[in-house]
Amino acid sequence: MAHVEFWFDLASTYSYLSALRIEAAAAARGATVAWRPFLLGPVFKAQGWETSPFNLYPAKGRYMVRDMERLARARDLAFRLPTPFPQNSLKAARMALVGADRGWTAAFVKAVFVAEFQDGADISDPSVLAGVCSKLGLDFRSILAASEAPDLKQRLRDATDEAMRRGIFGAPTFVTQDGEVFWGDDRLESAFDWNGGPKKERSE
Amino acid sequence: MAHVEFWFDLASTYSYLSALRIEAAAAARGATVAWRPFLLGPVFKAQGWETSPFNLYPAKGRYMVRDMERLARARDLAFRLPTPFPQNSLKAARMALVGADRGWTAAFVKAVFVAEFQDGADISDPSVLAGVCSKLGLDFRSILAASEAPDLKQRLRDATDEAMRRGIFGAPTFVTQDGEVFWGDDRLESAFDWNGGPKKERSE
Repeated sequence: MAHVEFWFDLASTYSYLSALRIEAAAAARGATVAWRPFLLGPVFKAQGWETSPFNLYPAKGRYMVRDMERLARARDLAFRLPTPFPQNSLKAARMALVGADRGWTAAFVKAVFVAEFQDGADISDPSVLAGVCSKLGLDFRSILAASEAPDLKQRLRDATDEAMRRGIFGAPTFVTQDGEVFWGDDRLESAFDWNGGPKKERSE
Repeated sequence: MAHVEFWFDLASTYSYLSALRIEAAAAARGATVAWRPFLLGPVFKAQGWETSPFNLYPAKGRYMVRDMERLARARDLAFRLPTPFPQNSLKAARMALVGADRGWTAAFVKAVFVAEFQDGADISDPSVLAGVCSKLGLDFRSILAASEAPDLKQRLRDATDEAMRRGIFGAPTFVTQDGEVFWGDDRLESAFDWNGGPKKERSE
């Protein structure tokens, strides 16, 4: 049974697309998913970037917005770019990690992405995160407290370090059990279908 | 009938993949292709880069090589990264433009990509380009002379300026008749199938 690690940053546009479809892709293949929140900020800083490449390189940023609009429309999803972009995803990422031991990370992450990229909410705003928790029947105060414990903060730092060690430089990234790395929402299927070697493509 | 502009740099790995499959993709749809050589160098310089992002960002570069290996194998293509990477594609790009008026640009470009990414040849070496011409029954000396005429050199500069004006920041890039821009070999089909709006995806 295929098992894929789904590495994402809660501020990442293309991670939003993957989060909303990865469970169906896994179910269609009898595969499983590990949701792995991390922070792109330190990864970008290690490359000398102080913000998203979509801000540093305006042509690339304009293209991303148009590409997201096209993909979202094709998938019947709303999409808007939040202000500011990228959002500060630190609090939300820590809370998502709290859920890893409690079984609600996937539901929480999807709800945060919807608030951010459909409703345009600021996901660094505690009231937005409280709203997400409320919708899911989760206790915001206890989760926030757990997310601010030193060991939890360290867990997120460790996850981000692990991402860099494994060669992850963007999000979403999918990692197979044998360590094969696939970058980008476009490669989601390739990760699930990886089987120790590339599959032959259907020729046109 | 769909018509797609195929913008490529002869030093670009993913452009190699697209060059070898775009004619079949067009034929399958009764569509046509305009082969548009340009230079990524000035585009990268305008973004503050002195070389390929695959060299500037080593994790991204390592990933690209692995991704190319996987894609090439899935398509029954050989792939090796030439030394140096990226190659200097100026001479080859000028020669490709000479072919635009004479009907052999596509054949020339495919042969240059094969020499570069299958045989590991240095495409800035005139003897390599002479070998490509010889295989295709083209007169290398007259093409080289035509490629060094001031108006031809200007045409390549104009093409690169046009690429930047149209928002192109990487290669391959596909542009539809209504100006829709699709970046990357992954988006080749999307460009041909664009029809004033995104197509619904088949749900899983």
